[in-house]
Amino acid sequence: MKKCILLIAVSILVACNQKKTPTNLTTDLSEQEKRDSTQIKHLFNAALTEGKSYEWLRDLTKNIGGRLSGSPEAQKAVEWGEKVMKEVGLDSVWLQPVMVPHWVRGKKEEAYYTSKGQKKNVPICALGFSIATPSDGVTAEVIEVKSLEEAEALGDKMNGKIVFFNRAFDDTLINTFRAYGGCVDQRVRGASICGQFGAKGVIVRSMTNAIDDYPHTGTMSYGDLPVSKYIPAAAISSKAAEDLSKDLKNNPTLKFYFKQNCKNLPDAPSFNVVGELKGSENPENIFVVGGHLDSWDLGEGAHDDGTGIVQSLEVAYLFKENNIRPKNTLRVVFFMNEENGTRGAKKYAELAKLNNENHIGGLESDAGGHTPRGFSIDANSTNTELLQSWKKLLSPYGLHDFDKGGSGADIRPLKAEDVTLVGYRPDPQRYFDYHHTSRDTFDKVNKRELELGSASMASIIYLMDKYLNSDTPVKP
Amino acid sequence: MKKCILLIAVSILVACNQKKTPTNLTTDLSEQEKRDSTQIKHLFNAALTEGKSYEWLRDLTKNIGGRLSGSPEAQKAVEWGEKVMKEVGLDSVWLQPVMVPHWVRGKKEEAYYTSKGQKKNVPICALGFSIATPSDGVTAEVIEVKSLEEAEALGDKMNGKIVFFNRAFDDTLINTFRAYGGCVDQRVRGASICGQFGAKGVIVRSMTNAIDDYPHTGTMSYGDLPVSKYIPAAAISSKAAEDLSKDLKNNPTLKFYFKQNCKNLPDAPSFNVVGELKGSENPENIFVVGGHLDSWDLGEGAHDDGTGIVQSLEVAYLFKENNIRPKNTLRVVFFMNEENGTRGAKKYAELAKLNNENHIGGLESDAGGHTPRGFSIDANSTNTELLQSWKKLLSPYGLHDFDKGGSGADIRPLKAEDVTLVGYRPDPQRYFDYHHTSRDTFDKVNKRELELGSASMASIIYLMDKYLNSDTPVKP
Repeated sequence: MKKCILLIAVSILVACNQKKTPTNLTTDLSEQEKRDSTQIKHLFNAALTEGKSYEWLRDLTKNIGGRLSGSPEAQKAVEWGEKVMKEVGLDSVWLQPVMVPHWVRGKKEEAYYTSKGQKKNVPICALGFSIATPSDGVTAEVIEVKSLEEAEALGDKMNGKIVFFNRAFDDTLINTFRAYGGCVDQRVRGASICGQFGAKGVIVRSMTNAIDDYPHTGTMSYGDLPVSKYIPAAAISSKAAEDLSKDLKNNPTLKFYFKQNCKNLPDAPSFNVVGELKGSENPENIFVVGGHLDSWDLGEGAHDDGTGIVQSLEVAYLFKENNIRPKNTLRVVFFMNEENGTRGAKKYAELAKLNNENHIGGLESDAGGHTPRGFSIDANSTNTELLQSWKKLLSPYGLHDFDKGGSGADIRPLKAEDVTLVGYRPDPQRYFDYHHTSRDTFDKVNKRELELGSASMASIIYLMDKYLNSDTPVKP
Repeated sequence: MKKCILLIAVSILVACNQKKTPTNLTTDLSEQEKRDSTQIKHLFNAALTEGKSYEWLRDLTKNIGGRLSGSPEAQKAVEWGEKVMKEVGLDSVWLQPVMVPHWVRGKKEEAYYTSKGQKKNVPICALGFSIATPSDGVTAEVIEVKSLEEAEALGDKMNGKIVFFNRAFDDTLINTFRAYGGCVDQRVRGASICGQFGAKGVIVRSMTNAIDDYPHTGTMSYGDLPVSKYIPAAAISSKAAEDLSKDLKNNPTLKFYFKQNCKNLPDAPSFNVVGELKGSENPENIFVVGGHLDSWDLGEGAHDDGTGIVQSLEVAYLFKENNIRPKNTLRVVFFMNEENGTRGAKKYAELAKLNNENHIGGLESDAGGHTPRGFSIDANSTNTELLQSWKKLLSPYGLHDFDKGGSGADIRPLKAEDVTLVGYRPDPQRYFDYHHTSRDTFDKVNKRELELGSASMASIIYLMDKYLNSDTPVKP
């Protein structure tokens, strides 16, 4: 027991001294960059010690919860958004009216099949915009396919059957959003194809890397299909998809039953929530920072997109806390209806055009609230290079990804040659464990990861406001 | 409802196309580097589609659980380790006997105090190596301090009191391990200082960024204190520490009670578990990859360090799956007793010296199983630069940190001028939410993050094996 304290203490300290501090990394910077680096450090310090985003998120997710467009919860979220924007002390806060689709899930769905005398319940949920099944459900044999092409090739063979789309995520893709992009056509377009050929319904493997019991909802579309040919569409859990696929091999004529009670109601009135800090030099130039206020109904809309909402507001809060008055106007927008219609985004862009507003840039956070990785840049090549040159200022905070790519569904309608659109990119590994499920809840969000995201966003907006302009970008 | 399917599908696909694939990044590489890049891609693909680490971890954590040195669970873990190494088909597997400290917690601790007539229970746990309280507990007034220096300056004023160390993590440090390093002296050395001056006990704020109800255990030491002056030492939850600090301001003479039943037993026999793949060209040169098999007793030892154990074995498994025979011998080591004594590490290094083994490098994973960030390099400058030159091969997988720094407590005793030691560095934001608590359980580990770590480790070992040698490192 007489071990040397000093040795233990020293060895723990040596073990912990793993990384240089961000401030040590300022040695290769110009004087201007050092000043920017110091300001960025202040933004991170404020987020990590005085940040409000985590408590805002708790309030939004636990006291309001899931907030699908048109629902009473979505309306509560609008009122909540207006309230917190005013509490932060933005110069002005207003609501932008917008009509949104109003789809309701109704009573909880059910599904099962029997294989070798054993009844298997299947975790299932209706897809957004889908119609209900008849009141006694749908029962039919199942045809499994892996793609839209394979389904289309079946033609009339699917008449009277349930078509089961079972193409899984490609787990070898490091960016899980690309795996999602490689599968989601099944969810979006499956029913529109199978409805043509008289299928009785469509079930789709959930959009996730995980093998578990949680069905993932999401939007679908009947496209140009005549209403008479609409068929019900649902997602089943990935585990159930794997099991069903195995059981179909042994028992190809098994009958699958599902019942759902969803409904499309007339469009409902709703709002984007907008607030701004007026620019000190060029108030007519506008940067937008935002996320979407609506969410799916199954969970609490925590990672999708409660985190984007509270981070966007925290950008303005951190500016105020650090006495940064932007040169251009900084506008925080809580967009309505990203999940099933992007009506809020369209309305915002329509009004911007109508009012001759001069948007010079935008930043969206809609990829979850996990630990920061970087940004995805949708801009002309000059501005892309400018943003990429800030990597050395931001890499001490774990921000290394500055690739060209998409920004976000809500700011994309603002795209133009001189508009610099940016998507915040947190780590994507866990995102599709929760996305559009009952598991997307507050407890899945880590406070520090959320706050580091807010500070990352505030930092790039700080630099964009300082160095970007719509005519001739200036290098720092 | 007649929305254009194509538009939805295209916009989702555009949104998902956020990053180049790793294979697109090979354009700036030499032919040799392209071959290495391809091999690395195979290692990642295998980990993400055929990896065994997650199921191994489930088995270790759920079927054995916490495995403190000297416990029956630690012995089960040794047997488990030998079994899984043999299942992977290593060329040889053996046990290295080592005597380890044997501290037991005994019956669950309890603590409370009364403030303004209200009894407050305090989440508490004994620190490793601490003695018990008397059987009726310790009751005393509390003096709060923020540092060892402040405690030492109190001198005899602490006689008969409980000293409460309450310096919190510095939340502005991006690397949470540095925040830990800045506080852990309170836990390790508090009792040795306060015992000198007749304090009745020491309570320490838990080592975490989070404010919650979970006490964090960990090792402490009485140093050179005479046994007669030993005093009981415990950790209280961060939330309780905040509350107690507030209550002490209003009520400085409040009495704090705690009781613990821990005990130091005679050293117990245990083992390191060792297995190796023989090198094809220089079998006498050895690379070690490892983690520690023991854990604290409160949780399941998932992130600390079950993940390091299964990732280390997966390195060998991935080599075999991809038909990579290392040029040098690759030795997988499950070290015993990292948490309270590092006896396994010392024994391993002692035997390596005794047997004249030629270790040329080592890699340890003991910083949790979260998403990969990079490596910390403890090597001479030539080899450090060589490892840093591989960043371009590994950055497509999120590995950007290649700083000089410590490696790990278990491989550090192998340190020498020509030995290249590396610490695997996953994202550190969530680690101290779980570290040394009852929350360090299997469900906190994400399968993909774990597997990406295994593949990251396999990739750098692949490169080290190919390009490092103990005499003259060759650039790729």
